[in-house]
Amino acid sequence: MLAVTILGNNSALPAFDRHPTAQVITMDDRLFLVDCGEGTQSQMAKYKIRRSKISHIFISHLHGDHYFGLIGLLTSMGLLGRTQEIHLYAPAALKSIIDLQLQVADTQLPFALHFHPLVQQGVLVKENTFEVSCFQVQHRVECWGFHFREIKPIRKINPEKALAYQVPASFFEQLKWGADYLSKTNELVKNEWVTDSGSPAKSYAYSADTVYDERIIESVKSCSLLYHEATYLKDMEDRATKRFHCTTAQAATIAKKAQVGKLLIGHFSSKYERLEDFEKEAREIFANTELAIEGVTYKV
Amino acid sequence: MLAVTILGNNSALPAFDRHPTAQVITMDDRLFLVDCGEGTQSQMAKYKIRRSKISHIFISHLHGDHYFGLIGLLTSMGLLGRTQEIHLYAPAALKSIIDLQLQVADTQLPFALHFHPLVQQGVLVKENTFEVSCFQVQHRVECWGFHFREIKPIRKINPEKALAYQVPASFFEQLKWGADYLSKTNELVKNEWVTDSGSPAKSYAYSADTVYDERIIESVKSCSLLYHEATYLKDMEDRATKRFHCTTAQAATIAKKAQVGKLLIGHFSSKYERLEDFEKEAREIFANTELAIEGVTYKV
Repeated sequence: MLAVTILGNNSALPAFDRHPTAQVITMDDRLFLVDCGEGTQSQMAKYKIRRSKISHIFISHLHGDHYFGLIGLLTSMGLLGRTQEIHLYAPAALKSIIDLQLQVADTQLPFALHFHPLVQQGVLVKENTFEVSCFQVQHRVECWGFHFREIKPIRKINPEKALAYQVPASFFEQLKWGADYLSKTNELVKNEWVTDSGSPAKSYAYSADTVYDERIIESVKSCSLLYHEATYLKDMEDRATKRFHCTTAQAATIAKKAQVGKLLIGHFSSKYERLEDFEKEAREIFANTELAIEGVTYKV
Repeated sequence: MLAVTILGNNSALPAFDRHPTAQVITMDDRLFLVDCGEGTQSQMAKYKIRRSKISHIFISHLHGDHYFGLIGLLTSMGLLGRTQEIHLYAPAALKSIIDLQLQVADTQLPFALHFHPLVQQGVLVKENTFEVSCFQVQHRVECWGFHFREIKPIRKINPEKALAYQVPASFFEQLKWGADYLSKTNELVKNEWVTDSGSPAKSYAYSADTVYDERIIESVKSCSLLYHEATYLKDMEDRATKRFHCTTAQAATIAKKAQVGKLLIGHFSSKYERLEDFEKEAREIFANTELAIEGVTYKV
């Protein structure tokens, strides 16, 4: 199961009961938090996110609407007696801010907070069933996107055929990953004789805040679900560019060129009370687009 | 007009839709913010506080539930194009935190933020019609209470009598402050012959977070309205003391010994969903007690 729950879909200035950016990624029974604007802990309470399940936190950049809620969340986790460690991936300077805030409060968190500064594109976390990587995007300050990928076998065993070819069960795990089987009597059983193609691994890419930048296409190529910011409607392209943000049309163009499965747009400017036009404009270019709505979980 | 509006009445861990500490003091047409827990800017929007009227901000101490919302509020004020200066009074270390957060975001506020570190007890701000002073309280970290006092004439002119004694209108301002009048022909007109006693100046004292400490009594003596924290019910006195907090009974005892006009209690622990017992217990010792309820304005 791969899914994303939107906790905040607005840009910097809170408005119309929309909140600054925060998303929770569900990967099987693990939760990852991506960005953490002010009020994220309240949004988590409202939408019944189980904080104890969060093992990794990823912060895209150090504009306040993407991290001002983090210190409050960490402090509350501490007050609630959390002991499980947390891995935090963020631009390097965040560590000094958190350290200073804990120090002046004479507070020691009761859990280990492992800080991993983001320094280059590539894999950040790799476990048996998933990996998370980061890629650079272009914003007014250092900014990173994140890519969550399931890792799962590429082939599905056909038990009857495997039995017929006398492949032992001990070799099944290797079969799932595409290996051919060589029997004790040196007979070759080709993988495709005893397996079918597996369901494809899914992936979710989060583009953070970014100006229109075609270098992102390579980073999010063919992902199942792409979240791309669309701060403005398409008539505001000049303002978007000046502020290192994107329009609906630009977000949809990236989605189309990257041939993603589906596009989710968010980070709406406080200029806009109604959001219908965002959906309409994006769908003109990339039909399979949805608005990121707070409290909604989008299954990948 | 002196009044206090409660924006947050809970202790550190948000619970039961109660928020961390923040209060807005209205003094005539000026607003002062006292403490600024996470989410204060949303609470201001909810309760229609006019942010543009806030000229001074006072932060009692650097536990997160009293200041994590400040950087978001300041940033939002900047995004809204504020140009009026703000005076910020807080423990010295807050400046480094704010500076660092603005620096990593490559943000310059479009208004002057004058930082005044709290270093000793005494008057912080003095204008024609009010003054604000600070006093030390005892908490786990450096912590300050604040006292807001109206400055107003002690006497009210009796126009008929003033006319009868031929006191010129140009001397009326001095009369209001208690001066006797000496006529050109050297006749003394005693102040009380031509004035009545004025309505007393009002005052509001905020005790911040504190353990039970009778030194506070002198600082808040006879104030019109005292806000004193009461984190726990009276049966939890040991825990309160250990955590440098107070119980209902302790808050009410301070109010009684200081002979204040009225007591407001808040900073309720997240242990408690219902608050009735807080009121009941405090009133057993100091009858004129009210609970600090979010969204309510208490006129002094």
